[in-house]
Amino acid sequence: MADARILYLVPGPISRARGVEELERRRSLLQGWASTGTDVGIAENDDGPGSIESAYEEYVSVPGSMRLAASAERDGYDAIILGCFGDPGLDGFREILSIPMVGPCEASMHVAAQLGHSFGIVTVLDSVVEPLRKLARVAGLDSRLATVVSCDVPVLELHDDSYEPVLEACEQALAAGADALILGCMSMAFLGVAERLSDELGVPVLNPARVALKTAEFLTSCGLSHSKRAYPVPPKIAAGTVAVL
Amino acid sequence: MADARILYLVPGPISRARGVEELERRRSLLQGWASTGTDVGIAENDDGPGSIESAYEEYVSVPGSMRLAASAERDGYDAIILGCFGDPGLDGFREILSIPMVGPCEASMHVAAQLGHSFGIVTVLDSVVEPLRKLARVAGLDSRLATVVSCDVPVLELHDDSYEPVLEACEQALAAGADALILGCMSMAFLGVAERLSDELGVPVLNPARVALKTAEFLTSCGLSHSKRAYPVPPKIAAGTVAVL
Amino acid sequence: MADARILYLVPGPISRARGVEELERRRSLLQGWASTGTDVGIAENDDGPGSIESAYEEYVSVPGSMRLAASAERDGYDAIILGCFGDPGLDGFREILSIPMVGPCEASMHVAAQLGHSFGIVTVLDSVVEPLRKLARVAGLDSRLATVVSCDVPVLELHDDSYEPVLEACEQALAAGADALILGCMSMAFLGVAERLSDELGVPVLNPARVALKTAEFLTSCGLSHSKRAYPVPPKIAAGTVAVL
Amino acid sequence: MADARILYLVPGPISRARGVEELERRRSLLQGWASTGTDVGIAENDDGPGSIESAYEEYVSVPGSMRLAASAERDGYDAIILGCFGDPGLDGFREILSIPMVGPCEASMHVAAQLGHSFGIVTVLDSVVEPLRKLARVAGLDSRLATVVSCDVPVLELHDDSYEPVLEACEQALAAGADALILGCMSMAFLGVAERLSDELGVPVLNPARVALKTAEFLTSCGLSHSKRAYPVPPKIAAGTVAVL
Amino acid sequence: MADARILYLVPGPISRARGVEELERRRSLLQGWASTGTDVGIAENDDGPGSIESAYEEYVSVPGSMRLAASAERDGYDAIILGCFGDPGLDGFREILSIPMVGPCEASMHVAAQLGHSFGIVTVLDSVVEPLRKLARVAGLDSRLATVVSCDVPVLELHDDSYEPVLEACEQALAAGADALILGCMSMAFLGVAERLSDELGVPVLNPARVALKTAEFLTSCGLSHSKRAYPVPPKIAAGTVAVL
Amino acid sequence: MADARILYLVPGPISRARGVEELERRRSLLQGWASTGTDVGIAENDDGPGSIESAYEEYVSVPGSMRLAASAERDGYDAIILGCFGDPGLDGFREILSIPMVGPCEASMHVAAQLGHSFGIVTVLDSVVEPLRKLARVAGLDSRLATVVSCDVPVLELHDDSYEPVLEACEQALAAGADALILGCMSMAFLGVAERLSDELGVPVLNPARVALKTAEFLTSCGLSHSKRAYPVPPKIAAGTVAVL
Repeated sequence: MADARILYLVPGPISRARGVEELERRRSLLQGWASTGTDVGIAENDDGPGSIESAYEEYVSVPGSMRLAASAERDGYDAIILGCFGDPGLDGFREILSIPMVGPCEASMHVAAQLGHSFGIVTVLDSVVEPLRKLARVAGLDSRLATVVSCDVPVLELHDDSYEPVLEACEQALAAGADALILGCMSMAFLGVAERLSDELGVPVLNPARVALKTAEFLTSCGLSHSKRAYPVPPKIAAGTVAVL
Repeated sequence: MADARILYLVPGPISRARGVEELERRRSLLQGWASTGTDVGIAENDDGPGSIESAYEEYVSVPGSMRLAASAERDGYDAIILGCFGDPGLDGFREILSIPMVGPCEASMHVAAQLGHSFGIVTVLDSVVEPLRKLARVAGLDSRLATVVSCDVPVLELHDDSYEPVLEACEQALAAGADALILGCMSMAFLGVAERLSDELGVPVLNPARVALKTAEFLTSCGLSHSKRAYPVPPKIAAGTVAVL
Repeated sequence: MADARILYLVPGPISRARGVEELERRRSLLQGWASTGTDVGIAENDDGPGSIESAYEEYVSVPGSMRLAASAERDGYDAIILGCFGDPGLDGFREILSIPMVGPCEASMHVAAQLGHSFGIVTVLDSVVEPLRKLARVAGLDSRLATVVSCDVPVLELHDDSYEPVLEACEQALAAGADALILGCMSMAFLGVAERLSDELGVPVLNPARVALKTAEFLTSCGLSHSKRAYPVPPKIAAGTVAVL
Repeated sequence: MADARILYLVPGPISRARGVEELERRRSLLQGWASTGTDVGIAENDDGPGSIESAYEEYVSVPGSMRLAASAERDGYDAIILGCFGDPGLDGFREILSIPMVGPCEASMHVAAQLGHSFGIVTVLDSVVEPLRKLARVAGLDSRLATVVSCDVPVLELHDDSYEPVLEACEQALAAGADALILGCMSMAFLGVAERLSDELGVPVLNPARVALKTAEFLTSCGLSHSKRAYPVPPKIAAGTVAVL
Repeated sequence: MADARILYLVPGPISRARGVEELERRRSLLQGWASTGTDVGIAENDDGPGSIESAYEEYVSVPGSMRLAASAERDGYDAIILGCFGDPGLDGFREILSIPMVGPCEASMHVAAQLGHSFGIVTVLDSVVEPLRKLARVAGLDSRLATVVSCDVPVLELHDDSYEPVLEACEQALAAGADALILGCMSMAFLGVAERLSDELGVPVLNPARVALKTAEFLTSCGLSHSKRAYPVPPKIAAGTVAVL
Repeated sequence: MADARILYLVPGPISRARGVEELERRRSLLQGWASTGTDVGIAENDDGPGSIESAYEEYVSVPGSMRLAASAERDGYDAIILGCFGDPGLDGFREILSIPMVGPCEASMHVAAQLGHSFGIVTVLDSVVEPLRKLARVAGLDSRLATVVSCDVPVLELHDDSYEPVLEACEQALAAGADALILGCMSMAFLGVAERLSDELGVPVLNPARVALKTAEFLTSCGLSHSKRAYPVPPKIAAGTVAVL
């Protein structure tokens, strides 16, 4: 029996866009990063958008993802990773779950803040720059965020050739004062470029998928989850007058 | 012909919970507050939650409300008011709309900040205190927010007898340093207690429904809307490869 | 009878500098922007400076303007607009008035903050850049202010040819990260360039005179004014031992 | 010849309210605190308010005080102390002066911030609490200000019996987390109670008159004054088209 | 061979104060919390203070601890945990090390910030309250820190009977608005009370020793360490003109 | 007998690096800046680093400097100046001392904040930029700090030819928005360039050695020292169970 069963929840139908093997490819990368005793599952939200490149698409993804998350907790998962760097719906998920829900952006910002003075986020398109800045503000980490830079490549066009534009965006972030970097998109996370970028640039470059997985393992191994005083069960659900979704 | 047609968008099926006449009652109150030349419409999101008392329910309400909003812009409305004090999905709406989308909490905080040094928000249940604090942080107005106090009455139990608990919550907010108050729930807004509270307490008490209506009139009369540089159309919608919802 | 009588208070003897018809020209523009039922009056402070381009001149303008304001309230005005973008003496006016006193900078910043993430202010001379930054800090909106840019044209030299330098300053503000703009001088406000700039630049450009007028209408129509708990009557005036001015 | 001639500028006609000997009493206390080689002068603004207990009265005091200050610089004074704890007009004075203008509140806050983690200000009436908070915000020191407490004694009623209410206000400030205190009124400063309070309470209690005098000596002895890049001469005065007042 | 060798560095001669078995007791608790493949070592700084209850003792502990840390890196350790909740010298250690140096306070604050909105720290004595607040400010997390409460038990008197005073301090922290708690002293961490407190209080209570261990495992397993751009090798050491200690 | 005996404490063995006459040269410059009645002593920490260009070296300097400081207080000194611009150990010193301990960086930032809106610090090497930013954050003055610029000259290579690189760094700081400057290294302070830079650049340029001396005189002349409520004596020293060092 696994010590910890962790679900990676993709908020959109990624297998429709990239083929069903992409789902398994991501799961398997995660499993490879996992500690002994961790079992990684993956699920996708069929009702979500094809890719998430705006606040609008973030919101669209949430209800379906919430249904998946609630069901994963019932199925015995020990933690869930929200598979979009925009952490869409994070506070809402925590209200309906008792197991930890890890937001890759939140988790990565808190790790980056321990590795440097000012972190930079490198992401896909200008349209997500401001939503990511908002996450830093909500986390109270705006004073630690140096910049958010886009490499101007849409999510679904990220592939093996994308190293160069990502590298250039990283260099811009360093020039803007960052001394630690975060890859700000989950499709970027699964490109496998973080280590190469880190070697070339001489600063830590965080892979948010791996950081989120390790955060989930961290929390489950310590028996920790979010505070229900901070994220109370919605009153009507707590009273039993309404079921979750 | 009306100078401005403004839609009040209720993010849940309020007529199911409170009877269909409640919808018209609210519309008619808004119409009564409106300037000459303003035409107020109302619509409800049939796919939304019965009432909104948590971040979870806020998220659940958004996709259906977005469909209503996009359709209202196509139908020629000049501005939309988001009929939940939690402003759920506000940044997302602005991406898909070119007409102004008014968030009652955001609008009320910015008015309250012009009437006093520290405003307080009085709301329904403890479960929405933190979501409202988050809105102040996102707006950059946390230094102006004195407190958020709940009167411990669920949304659907707010009615003519609710004056006393609301008054007590207002008094707590004043004791915590607020010098201007905001009613932090749209069902509270339509109770008609703001003026009475203001007279009794000697400080401005903002009715967020009326503030949101006046903000919508303000913007349309000046030909102003949100910046598309700040809230760009989602890239795939802009490219025409995906339709709004 | 008018629904609302609103006074536009010019803190210096503008008719001496620009001819008496300038006063009526401004009043008439304001009246044109007003809603049905609003009556706009105008008055100038004969004891004020010729134009306001420094904190020094702001302070010099205040006592005479306060006399005008106190007298306007006695004469039955329902709201007053402080006709200088530096909002000189705003907190002091509110202590001696019970009717709303609208500061064009304060009002415009709070509207701009609802239209974009980061607003920029475009003003006349470098000498007022820091006083305007101070207003953002006092309002608690410094995190929302992208920049203040001067177009290097003195107040009294602003005229029909001033479009180009103002446009250039706007472009600088956008380059500095602003996504909504405010014209930061009342003489600039009455040039009639806000709409043209907005069309050319594709972002909202706020005319602070129009925003202030609409804010005054907003407040009077809702029966709102500043909190006397926040801006108490000066103790000796309250005690009747000293008269206002 | 004196090393430094320092003017203490009283912004209202204090000799009218408290007798002409009060002016000399204050000058002589300041002279007693001064270093060898410092010559203290005193002047009062005949056009100012009887006492300053509101933002309104602060503004009323400024123009007359500015005339006195400009004339003091022409008369060869080396530095001026603004004799009101509200620092009324400080930025404006610095624009028209090249010699240092010391604000007692600003100077005291910066010293107190070096003596403890959180300072408290004890002042006369509730009506000046918010204006003092605003000064902390303008100085960027709001995170260091624990509280502002009023002892509820009007300026002109402060006398030898006032020790008890001031002590009680100090105790409240300590209970609110302050670990260093500032007497927040110049009439309180000249009561001679700072040392006694400090002994009784076991924390530093700053006398703002003495702190301001020492700051003026500090700056003149180092040949320092405010930056004219920060406080430029008002453009029309710099151009010679308008005289100072 | 171990996957990761992690040193727990006690900054003072704890075996002198509590007996040599205390060192092994702590190591063995850490080893018990570790993942398969982690090897925990422990070392104590013989030149450090008997216990750390002040900024003064923190500074005294640093040079000796730095010698131990530099030597541990040479000996092949993969990460070091700084065994004092005050994180004394953290930025200095990172300059001379390339392996990760984990500060238990820093790490715990960043985890707590992911579990609730406002965390509280419960510590030993009033004398360390302000040093801990300073750490939150340096981390940029002051807006997330609800309070620091002391249980008024000196470090060396913490033992099995200390549950009650710690519980009371936790309850004070919750009353002050915290919704997640951190035990703010390493001797408190090894009492084994975190889980019991968490059960009794219904909020997450972080054990900083365990959090620090898991953070060290996290970083080593991802091949991450602090940014040398953020924490450059001291210039003279980099130039080889001076050896580390 | 002197009115005030002030010790300038050099945290490293400067006479070893620069010859014993350097110690007397510095003392004599300080004595020259002092007021009549002040007696300046100087002492160096033989156990400190050769020069301080990193957080690491700052920490190494502290214990020896603390021994010197404690002994200086016993010897009757009235105040101590910490002779390193990084203010290493400042909070720790204040715990074990009752006489004022002046940090040159802290003191200079608080004076600069009274002379301009945004101050810049010009220092030696990039390796101390972040430690100085941290001091601004700890002081709560980060919103007033425009920039920290290094002139890329190591401490021990600062000499008469260093004017040009320092000037260039100053110009960069002004270009970054500073309107008042601080020389951010004590060896730079004793170069005697502050006045020349100030004349050439037209803004105040603070010499931190002179500012620290004047701050020490200021505090002693007013009978002020740091709050022991803020910086309590370490509990074991207060209890007499442990001696200072």
